[in-house]
Amino acid sequence: MTSCSSEFDLIAKYFAPLATSPNAFALKDDAALVPQRAGHDIVVTTDTVVAGIDFFEDDPPDTIAKKALRVNLSDLAAKGAEPAAYLLSLSLSPASADEAWLGMFARGLGDDQAHYGVTLLGGDMSGTPGPLSVAITAFGHVPAGRMIRRDGARAGDFVYVTGTIGDSGGGLAARQGPLFERYRVPDPPVALGRKLIGIASAAIDVSDGLIADLGHIAQTSGARIVVEADRVPRSDALRALWGNDVLRAVTAGDDYQIAFTSSAPDAPAACIGRVEKGAGVVLLDARGQEIAVPVKGFTHF
Amino acid sequence: MTSCSSEFDLIAKYFAPLATSPNAFALKDDAALVPQRAGHDIVVTTDTVVAGIDFFEDDPPDTIAKKALRVNLSDLAAKGAEPAAYLLSLSLSPASADEAWLGMFARGLGDDQAHYGVTLLGGDMSGTPGPLSVAITAFGHVPAGRMIRRDGARAGDFVYVTGTIGDSGGGLAARQGPLFERYRVPDPPVALGRKLIGIASAAIDVSDGLIADLGHIAQTSGARIVVEADRVPRSDALRALWGNDVLRAVTAGDDYQIAFTSSAPDAPAACIGRVEKGAGVVLLDARGQEIAVPVKGFTHF
Repeated sequence: MTSCSSEFDLIAKYFAPLATSPNAFALKDDAALVPQRAGHDIVVTTDTVVAGIDFFEDDPPDTIAKKALRVNLSDLAAKGAEPAAYLLSLSLSPASADEAWLGMFARGLGDDQAHYGVTLLGGDMSGTPGPLSVAITAFGHVPAGRMIRRDGARAGDFVYVTGTIGDSGGGLAARQGPLFERYRVPDPPVALGRKLIGIASAAIDVSDGLIADLGHIAQTSGARIVVEADRVPRSDALRALWGNDVLRAVTAGDDYQIAFTSSAPDAPAACIGRVEKGAGVVLLDARGQEIAVPVKGFTHF
Repeated sequence: MTSCSSEFDLIAKYFAPLATSPNAFALKDDAALVPQRAGHDIVVTTDTVVAGIDFFEDDPPDTIAKKALRVNLSDLAAKGAEPAAYLLSLSLSPASADEAWLGMFARGLGDDQAHYGVTLLGGDMSGTPGPLSVAITAFGHVPAGRMIRRDGARAGDFVYVTGTIGDSGGGLAARQGPLFERYRVPDPPVALGRKLIGIASAAIDVSDGLIADLGHIAQTSGARIVVEADRVPRSDALRALWGNDVLRAVTAGDDYQIAFTSSAPDAPAACIGRVEKGAGVVLLDARGQEIAVPVKGFTHF
């Protein structure tokens, strides 16, 4: 007899080549070893992307793979961690369960492995009557005790954000053009994240929307965050699409940039506000008037 | 404003109490730290259980939680690892997304955390239009370099299996009684697993069916495994249900026992056969005749 079945064949054909570390046992075991580094903590994060919620089922498979991986690398970056490895749990819907799809999906992962220096450790693959979903668990390393947390923001700190905000939300609204490509394939500042150790007092990746995510920092830190709307960096492409509608940009979500606080006045990102005593997040217009923020960002319920 | 939404409230209410380790940051961060132990490797495994495939959607929520956790602890046990912590990724269908359900689900996890000495590190929770699914990623420790692998079986080794085989499959067929409880809540030999380091040359947890899983060992080890049907341990309850139908027991799956090979003639489990040169798995009857095994165990495609 042969113990092969198509599930195992597919894993061997498309995913085993991505498992380049001896820790992965070539995906031939039930388990893998998490890579350790002397003097470092291992940061772990997990996020799932689901067709119809986080991407379109007919998106190019390589972009789905990259988004699934990058939303996790984004979390690692915001914690100051250097990415190392990941687990993949793939729930295939009938529409996605063909080899051409899997081949393109695996190619997207392979491209990003080379780009970010990460490797597949293991995971599982199954069929689902529900929508296609891709769950990734990513591991990274930070110097021991130095993970950048959410709860370190202190009154007097400045508030920063990397990149530009709202592009992905604009892309989702426009459904075409370079912003839509950004929605499909986010570009988290992975290299910058590591440099924020010793600079950032608190950090979070912007996934639910800038205001909502700063709200997480404010709440966990027990502080108030004031954001000046005009200082929120926005791309020319987004301004062409949404004009000066900052509110829409800061509530759109899916940015996968890093929002952080720091006592340093010259941190390597755009300064958009400050931390005060109190609670919550306030968005101010150019005259210092509060802009009401009706939507606090995406939640699943 | 408050940054709370119901998703975060539910996590705080039901799951934060399970995150008893400082490595989990009380589930208030995007990430957690994987617990390390000096002189040990970190074994990681991930498995997802899905309503309608691995359990019934109307099963008691605490049994769903326990099954989801235990199928992962079973993998760790088969690798010789002592379980330490886990991540939970919960995809709730509309039918399961109520607080009573979540409360019972969390209580099931809490009971098992106390029983197995593990703690919740983090995860995520989302809604799905598809079936309820529970993905768990579990971490355990083994002395460095000593993880029990699939590929170490050698001609001359004996073949062993823990517990009794087929109970869960019988329970699924009967849909009632103590065997059905075993299907719902497996009882992997977690404490025994650790004792197999230095004894087992190869091991796997029996999830796809005894013959199929031994097939994985045979294939990865490049050896042939011969199983004597009469020596496969079966419970009285299963014999009452299926009589002497060994074939059904060894292809049923969902056992979550450990099958292993060892050069020791007196390993702490039932000896059911031997490893030979060659390939594949052979099941022999009392007269030494080969029993044809038409079904090689469960696969997802």
